[in-house]
Amino acid sequence: MTIQRRELRPDDVEIAIAYCGVCHSDAHQAHNDWKKSIYPMVPGHEIVGHVIAIGSSVTSHAVGDTVAVGCMVDSCLDCAACVDHEEQHCENGAVGTYNSRDCHTGEPTAGGYSQRIVVRENFVLSVPPSLDLRHAAPLLCAGITLWSPLRRFDTGPGKRVAIVGLGGLGHMGVKLASALGAEVTIITTSQSKGEDAKALGAHHVLLSTDPLAMTAAASRFDLIVDTIPVAHDVGPYIGLLARNGKIVVVGAIDVLPPIHAGMLLRNHRSLVGSAIGGLAATQEMLNFCAEHQVLPKCEVIAMQDINTAWARMQANDVRYRFVIDMSTLAA
Amino acid sequence: MTIQRRELRPDDVEIAIAYCGVCHSDAHQAHNDWKKSIYPMVPGHEIVGHVIAIGSSVTSHAVGDTVAVGCMVDSCLDCAACVDHEEQHCENGAVGTYNSRDCHTGEPTAGGYSQRIVVRENFVLSVPPSLDLRHAAPLLCAGITLWSPLRRFDTGPGKRVAIVGLGGLGHMGVKLASALGAEVTIITTSQSKGEDAKALGAHHVLLSTDPLAMTAAASRFDLIVDTIPVAHDVGPYIGLLARNGKIVVVGAIDVLPPIHAGMLLRNHRSLVGSAIGGLAATQEMLNFCAEHQVLPKCEVIAMQDINTAWARMQANDVRYRFVIDMSTLAA
Repeated sequence: MTIQRRELRPDDVEIAIAYCGVCHSDAHQAHNDWKKSIYPMVPGHEIVGHVIAIGSSVTSHAVGDTVAVGCMVDSCLDCAACVDHEEQHCENGAVGTYNSRDCHTGEPTAGGYSQRIVVRENFVLSVPPSLDLRHAAPLLCAGITLWSPLRRFDTGPGKRVAIVGLGGLGHMGVKLASALGAEVTIITTSQSKGEDAKALGAHHVLLSTDPLAMTAAASRFDLIVDTIPVAHDVGPYIGLLARNGKIVVVGAIDVLPPIHAGMLLRNHRSLVGSAIGGLAATQEMLNFCAEHQVLPKCEVIAMQDINTAWARMQANDVRYRFVIDMSTLAA
Repeated sequence: MTIQRRELRPDDVEIAIAYCGVCHSDAHQAHNDWKKSIYPMVPGHEIVGHVIAIGSSVTSHAVGDTVAVGCMVDSCLDCAACVDHEEQHCENGAVGTYNSRDCHTGEPTAGGYSQRIVVRENFVLSVPPSLDLRHAAPLLCAGITLWSPLRRFDTGPGKRVAIVGLGGLGHMGVKLASALGAEVTIITTSQSKGEDAKALGAHHVLLSTDPLAMTAAASRFDLIVDTIPVAHDVGPYIGLLARNGKIVVVGAIDVLPPIHAGMLLRNHRSLVGSAIGGLAATQEMLNFCAEHQVLPKCEVIAMQDINTAWARMQANDVRYRFVIDMSTLAA
């Protein structure tokens, strides 16, 4: 399908897309799982590439720059959320990179499974030169989704952090928490994923299917980031939280089964929801990943393989993120 | 029934009880609702009175001092929680004022529905002289239960705080949040309780039974303290939270119905549990209440009326706390 990108507005940047990550939500949106799909749809919100043109007033990026675009392409930049660098919570509604509507024209937005994209300059991030572009794309969604709660809740030396689930999100959690200096535990149902997590930087493996191990880990963690992408009982994880501990749900946009409030009162625990992160945090994360060489583990595919990749992703058969080499789209 | 208080240990304080508040949990414990009751039982953990004897090493209190005892009478004072002044979360288990066991002798503890009590000096609070003793007792449980989350989450000028439920806990929430300078909304099902709350310092009334009003209040509050004492759906309240807002459950030690995680992801909201507060926070609250003349609204009763009082409390027919005048016990 051929789509038309808009003429550059004064504050627009046009990007030739080099790679685009494949996120679970791409399949959810394409299949209208969230009942808000607009067709035809161009998915993709983990975008890296190079600037090929800029609008007349653009100062933050120049032609030839290596840049990135994540889950948002616009917001009001004026409300309290935007002023606080939490554009994802824009009170007037952040504009999604795809399956959303441009806030000026009302036209549907189209994402990164394409050769080019035009984005307002504020929503274009800079990619440091030391970041391997072939693997950087998933940082724009999976990376920031984990970075945001890890940073907000002071992940670092002396903190015990657990990551629940080792998929596209979870493996970034292990890598980032470990690079931030925390003592990292992967919580998984699979011993083999546990071993993988250790190779990625986890210090401990906790099998959630092992009742004795779960009991022994009661009240152990300062922070748990729960990346399970479907409805599930968070109760067993809440019991693992230390005093003032927090469990942050980032994957399940779904109904959580009943929770006993006594589990929250004990140890003054919190159940928190977190969605991606703001632009400043995303840039901070990109800079951190460049400095510490934290990169997603990717399987690079051709555009022609996308249907197979979605099927494998939905069957949980990817370690840990597909990335489309967009140079294959022309083929 | 005649009970024997222990001989004073070197760090013990003996108190003649002047007043004891009547807490919902007194009835729960007496009726073994939480399946942990030890009989015979002497309830009562909202205690004010005067020091009548001190152990050989006691330095913090003297005979004649006006003092108070809350929900705890001992803890290890050595673990990280105790060192952090969160003795209620003592890793070795705080000793409850009643229906608990002395951590040295294993004997059951007996509470404030009595003439005297012997308590380790660290767990004896000082009552400032300007605090009206007839009404101060409920501060020791209802007061600190609300003070703790209000203070922790920076209640003050410019903050929008809502209190759900106007009972013993909720009415203290309205008074304390208002005295701290916040913009206070009472959320209730009853227009008449709403009017009462305004008289106590609330600025706004939100009827949770009014769908239009609830919709209009979406994303409004920085902090909601939910004092409902039974299982209930917190979902409608979560939707009222602003960005980074927190709902703190302090009353329901029960199962909460399913919650949609999307409600938490939106606006980065938190569901938190909170139980009473530490000794330092309790003393801070007593001092604040003396300075600002914040006092529970009490109905003072004779010991002989306790059964009627319990029945009325359980029928939600008290505005807002019964207090036993312990001088009537001798009668």
